[in-house]
Amino acid sequence: MRDVAIIGVGVTKFGELWDKSFRNLISEAGAKAIIDSGISGKEIDALYVGSMSAGRFVGQEHVGALVADCSGFSHMHIPSIRVESACASGGLAVRQGYFSVASGMNDVVVVGGVEKMTDVIGSEATDTLATGLDQEWEAFFGATLPGIYAMIATKHMHDYGTTREQLAQVAVKNHANGALNPYAQFKRPISIESVLNAPFAAYPLGMLDCSPVSDGAATVILCAAEKAKDYTSKPVKIIGSGQASDTLALHGRKDICTFESTVHAANMAYKHAKIEPKNIDVAEVHDCFTIAEILAIEDLGFVKKGDGGKAIESKITTLDGEKPVNTSGGLKAKGHPVGATGVAQIAEIVMQLRGDADQRQVKDANIGLAHNVGASGASSVVHILEAI
Amino acid sequence: MRDVAIIGVGVTKFGELWDKSFRNLISEAGAKAIIDSGISGKEIDALYVGSMSAGRFVGQEHVGALVADCSGFSHMHIPSIRVESACASGGLAVRQGYFSVASGMNDVVVVGGVEKMTDVIGSEATDTLATGLDQEWEAFFGATLPGIYAMIATKHMHDYGTTREQLAQVAVKNHANGALNPYAQFKRPISIESVLNAPFAAYPLGMLDCSPVSDGAATVILCAAEKAKDYTSKPVKIIGSGQASDTLALHGRKDICTFESTVHAANMAYKHAKIEPKNIDVAEVHDCFTIAEILAIEDLGFVKKGDGGKAIESKITTLDGEKPVNTSGGLKAKGHPVGATGVAQIAEIVMQLRGDADQRQVKDANIGLAHNVGASGASSVVHILEAI
Repeated sequence: MRDVAIIGVGVTKFGELWDKSFRNLISEAGAKAIIDSGISGKEIDALYVGSMSAGRFVGQEHVGALVADCSGFSHMHIPSIRVESACASGGLAVRQGYFSVASGMNDVVVVGGVEKMTDVIGSEATDTLATGLDQEWEAFFGATLPGIYAMIATKHMHDYGTTREQLAQVAVKNHANGALNPYAQFKRPISIESVLNAPFAAYPLGMLDCSPVSDGAATVILCAAEKAKDYTSKPVKIIGSGQASDTLALHGRKDICTFESTVHAANMAYKHAKIEPKNIDVAEVHDCFTIAEILAIEDLGFVKKGDGGKAIESKITTLDGEKPVNTSGGLKAKGHPVGATGVAQIAEIVMQLRGDADQRQVKDANIGLAHNVGASGASSVVHILEAI
Repeated sequence: MRDVAIIGVGVTKFGELWDKSFRNLISEAGAKAIIDSGISGKEIDALYVGSMSAGRFVGQEHVGALVADCSGFSHMHIPSIRVESACASGGLAVRQGYFSVASGMNDVVVVGGVEKMTDVIGSEATDTLATGLDQEWEAFFGATLPGIYAMIATKHMHDYGTTREQLAQVAVKNHANGALNPYAQFKRPISIESVLNAPFAAYPLGMLDCSPVSDGAATVILCAAEKAKDYTSKPVKIIGSGQASDTLALHGRKDICTFESTVHAANMAYKHAKIEPKNIDVAEVHDCFTIAEILAIEDLGFVKKGDGGKAIESKITTLDGEKPVNTSGGLKAKGHPVGATGVAQIAEIVMQLRGDADQRQVKDANIGLAHNVGASGASSVVHILEAI
């Protein structure tokens, strides 16, 4: 297996983008990434696309072929592979694209992630997101993602003394970061009080503890590392990749406050990269709800299990803290077009490691981590990147 | 890239299986394949799953994690990758699994395909299948798969003099083969007259020119070829793999009677395998409609473009003809649970090459081909297998 580098990234603005269709979004992100990388279309060997549920959100399956077509590659008859792992679809697409280059099968691949979630009515977005849960044992009986994460939060509060204020601080931090990100859905700082006083989505999670429903796309270009310098002076190498699964339903797990899929995917990635959690300079983690960021920093080994709430309170994960987390604003403030999220996380880490993150730039960032979770943790994908 | 062999296969009966759920089906096919291969669960490095639209058919995305879970692998936290390319999802899953072993990343992978299509009401199955077409330019305006293939058939009749009788002979042949296949949805021979006199789905295609709506699953076990003999005395090697895309909408193509995706995928697979079409002893091709089998044998190079109808008439593709096609009964008679189809095609070719196809066994079959198409040809996947 040879080394693989990221030579270009492109993201669209995330938000309620009434004037942009599914295909507009992915073409825009793709074009930006291709321009950023300096490659020509002819050099592309394959496309990988992450999308959770284009079939339900916009009535379109055959997503790989669609993306090849609307990106102008149909005359090349290029192979295009759509992968799905609920909200971890983007991370999984990066991982599959990574392996296709690492194995020598492809030299240059484009990996896109996209979701158009706002063209639905009533509870359809919530219902479609709940297809990432166990349909027969959870969703059918009315469980939704906010409800499932609320149970996890309640148990975490019970077991470890985590408080609603600590949860709120995740949202406050991520909104502060999002305010510095031109592509973020929410570009406004919020206060602890506004989070605590927001209407409940599902106790103890209020509206401002939840990531929004979003449209958006992100793309990264992968290339054999030995050729990366031909295209860019600032390539970023993928030094670790991990993926793991867990029971689909929460009730099958030993401990609902630990995502074993994250623990296993992270260990796989750390081992691959030959580093430890302490070596990570900056991380994008899957904060679909505030409690999810607390689980993530514990399960990724940044802090001990149970200490996540206290870690947030002590500000170690802020932009100028010792372990900045979700510098982009995270899913919470940047927005969460589910299939795009995992790719956008990688794009943010690349921007940080290239020193291109402007007002949200972390100082001396050399190694970064991206952590993408499917629904309530039945799948996780972790990547570790390094500036070369 | 190292050689990869198939060491086990498992298929469920295809049909309207009211008493079997999505997860029942994939677990059954998986268990059969694992027993057939003689491996233990602990040896499995990853799962690949093809499903077109579990999100719409059964309200379940996160299909990779579901399959890992319901197959009893969640405690192993095994990586599980769901891929989608409309009706070519199964073939794409085999291709992705193949590359993961060929690259050395995995030693043993399980590749499953599954669809549960009959738990829907009214036109939902047709509507969901139409999500494989171009939603914005075709399906939104009422185009369905039968309607699209009817246009192709009409043009083929106009350009090449293909007749409704020749189309009907595809159905007659495939029903004759299906009658010999214990797993087929339709196990009854039909006559040319019954095909010609069936009500029209979309002129010139009658009901018996169309593959059915089906439930079913299929699984194959892939392994590094050098280890295959440890498990089975009859491994089958994957000697060629190809995939290609085309415009999603029919109107974007130079010639609607040629699936360029099939031509390109087949050429890629032939080149990879270092063989020519004449070397193929037996083939499973994507006959979602009778006209599709005629296009397939032309686009795969078995006969000249335009000669498909005459070739069917001259019986070269029957079980005892010189180029047997769709010995399983094809999608037409075996059934077409869309995500399962591409994997089931591979399973049939493996059974043929091992000499395990009982009453439908082709004599002296050493090299076989499987051809899987997404919707109206915007994607195709071709595999070539050889007994070793």
